[in-house]
Amino acid sequence: MRIVVPAGGIGGARFLRGLQAALGVGAEPTGTDPAITVIGNTGDDITLFGLRICPDLDTVMYTLGGGINEEQGWGRAAESFTVKEELAAYGMQPTWFGLGDRDTATHIVRAQMMAAGYPLSAVTAALCDRWRPGVRLLPMTDDRVETHVVVDDEPGGRRAIHFQEWWIRYRAALPAREITGIGAEDAAPAPGVLEAIDEADAVLLPPSNPVVSIGSVLAVPGIREALERTTVVGVSPIIGDAPVRGMADACLKAIGVETSAQAVAEHYGPALLDGWLVDKADEHTHVDGVAVRSLPLYMSDPEATAAIARAALDLAAQLKGQPS
Amino acid sequence: MRIVVPAGGIGGARFLRGLQAALGVGAEPTGTDPAITVIGNTGDDITLFGLRICPDLDTVMYTLGGGINEEQGWGRAAESFTVKEELAAYGMQPTWFGLGDRDTATHIVRAQMMAAGYPLSAVTAALCDRWRPGVRLLPMTDDRVETHVVVDDEPGGRRAIHFQEWWIRYRAALPAREITGIGAEDAAPAPGVLEAIDEADAVLLPPSNPVVSIGSVLAVPGIREALERTTVVGVSPIIGDAPVRGMADACLKAIGVETSAQAVAEHYGPALLDGWLVDKADEHTHVDGVAVRSLPLYMSDPEATAAIARAALDLAAQLKGQPS
Repeated sequence: MRIVVPAGGIGGARFLRGLQAALGVGAEPTGTDPAITVIGNTGDDITLFGLRICPDLDTVMYTLGGGINEEQGWGRAAESFTVKEELAAYGMQPTWFGLGDRDTATHIVRAQMMAAGYPLSAVTAALCDRWRPGVRLLPMTDDRVETHVVVDDEPGGRRAIHFQEWWIRYRAALPAREITGIGAEDAAPAPGVLEAIDEADAVLLPPSNPVVSIGSVLAVPGIREALERTTVVGVSPIIGDAPVRGMADACLKAIGVETSAQAVAEHYGPALLDGWLVDKADEHTHVDGVAVRSLPLYMSDPEATAAIARAALDLAAQLKGQPS
Repeated sequence: MRIVVPAGGIGGARFLRGLQAALGVGAEPTGTDPAITVIGNTGDDITLFGLRICPDLDTVMYTLGGGINEEQGWGRAAESFTVKEELAAYGMQPTWFGLGDRDTATHIVRAQMMAAGYPLSAVTAALCDRWRPGVRLLPMTDDRVETHVVVDDEPGGRRAIHFQEWWIRYRAALPAREITGIGAEDAAPAPGVLEAIDEADAVLLPPSNPVVSIGSVLAVPGIREALERTTVVGVSPIIGDAPVRGMADACLKAIGVETSAQAVAEHYGPALLDGWLVDKADEHTHVDGVAVRSLPLYMSDPEATAAIARAALDLAAQLKGQPS
């Protein structure tokens, strides 16, 4: 069984943990080919203080590798913030990024390897040698793609800021006029990404942000086309009219998509999507050409999350072989 | 009163604190021209993990700025080592360098400013804006100079290692066959260094390591010549036949100089040295052309250290005006 999961950060990582439980897989011996390949969003990546920070890749790696701060869902457990405080004492900007000491070491290793010429995919593999997440974690691309958000500036003007600044510093509260992936058009899928999709029994879209997480992955030329050739089952990130977590509504608004399970499915579209899992609250959802199933979608605990993953696998198995 | 002090790390920093007490100076308001200019050794500097580390400059800055770990004499007070532990968990080498979390922030700021094109002297001034050490702290040079130590390798062979590796990893216990300052010959004094020496009422050599600290400063072309034109009083780093602290004996042995107050004074030589303070135990010291005074030389507490500084100032005042 080979499953591919394009994923963002917290929501993606939690779904992946449920998927591992559903498949009965986890940390594998070295050399084993994992059943799950994750195509991680790198549009959130940012360089700060000379450190190369990949929030979504790290959240997946830490969550599946046992290093995550469980309560907040991102960052390391037992984290301290000494480096961050000291940088602020020197007057270094920005101060809004939650740079932990343990996390800093990850970014130092990554920045050093990248400075030495290794592509992000090789760096990610090296970091995973320590964390053993039990999945093959691939960045969506080795090229630099950065999600920028266009916001209002001086009366009448606009400016583009890095997604992280919009998300963390402004808590997504500045109306986003546009969300763009700088560099996306010229990016190539990282080695192994297209092959993994082509060889997959199913591709599952976790309830990650459909704009800045899954949307970033889909924006890398070649990935959407590959996904359209295979069986794709998505898990709605919207329950009722609210995101399961995070601030996906602010992102959907920016691209003119309503915050509903129905609208997100239509946004992905039937060419991409074969199946769509929605919450019981959204069982009225209907999209031509997409098989919709409803079940409780809150990833409230590991068992509930595994049940969602199992439903996604079951639906994919049903749809497999039907014309995509 | 303008005093110039070429300095290494711990011994130099402690002497400087005594000198500040003797002169009644300390943290100055911005814009004030400090009475003391320190010419800091940069031969110990090293780049690790993409961080630019200047141990001696930082020891002076932290000691005079109130951030030093008083017991060990180097590094920050209330330091933690999370980043170091995490780097080791990733398998990053080397693991022997004592990289603290607070200290890491200093090195990040420095590396970032240097990557942006600022010379080390400008970076040092920027760091001192926070620490207010009450001295003007200049690196000996903005050029890259690295002290390397030649040690025995495979039977019959030799290899050169960075001074920090020899000092910290091997505790200076590998016999040093040669100590060289890579880049020293082509280095230029940092802006302000020669001017400070020329305008000084006196230059005091603290009991820093005469080989790898003061010796490095003297190896920058132009600095020794400038010092020979002015009144220089040194404080012996050797009491009896042992270094006051540190492992200066291992360095002296490498350059064929005996570990004694007498031999170090002869090594500096009368062209450089006008006065020489030795401990009571070494009152027999005699070097033609150098005025020797003996007094208790252990910097056991701030008062004792201030008394040594006062004696150095007094001797310099006596010698001032006499043919140098």
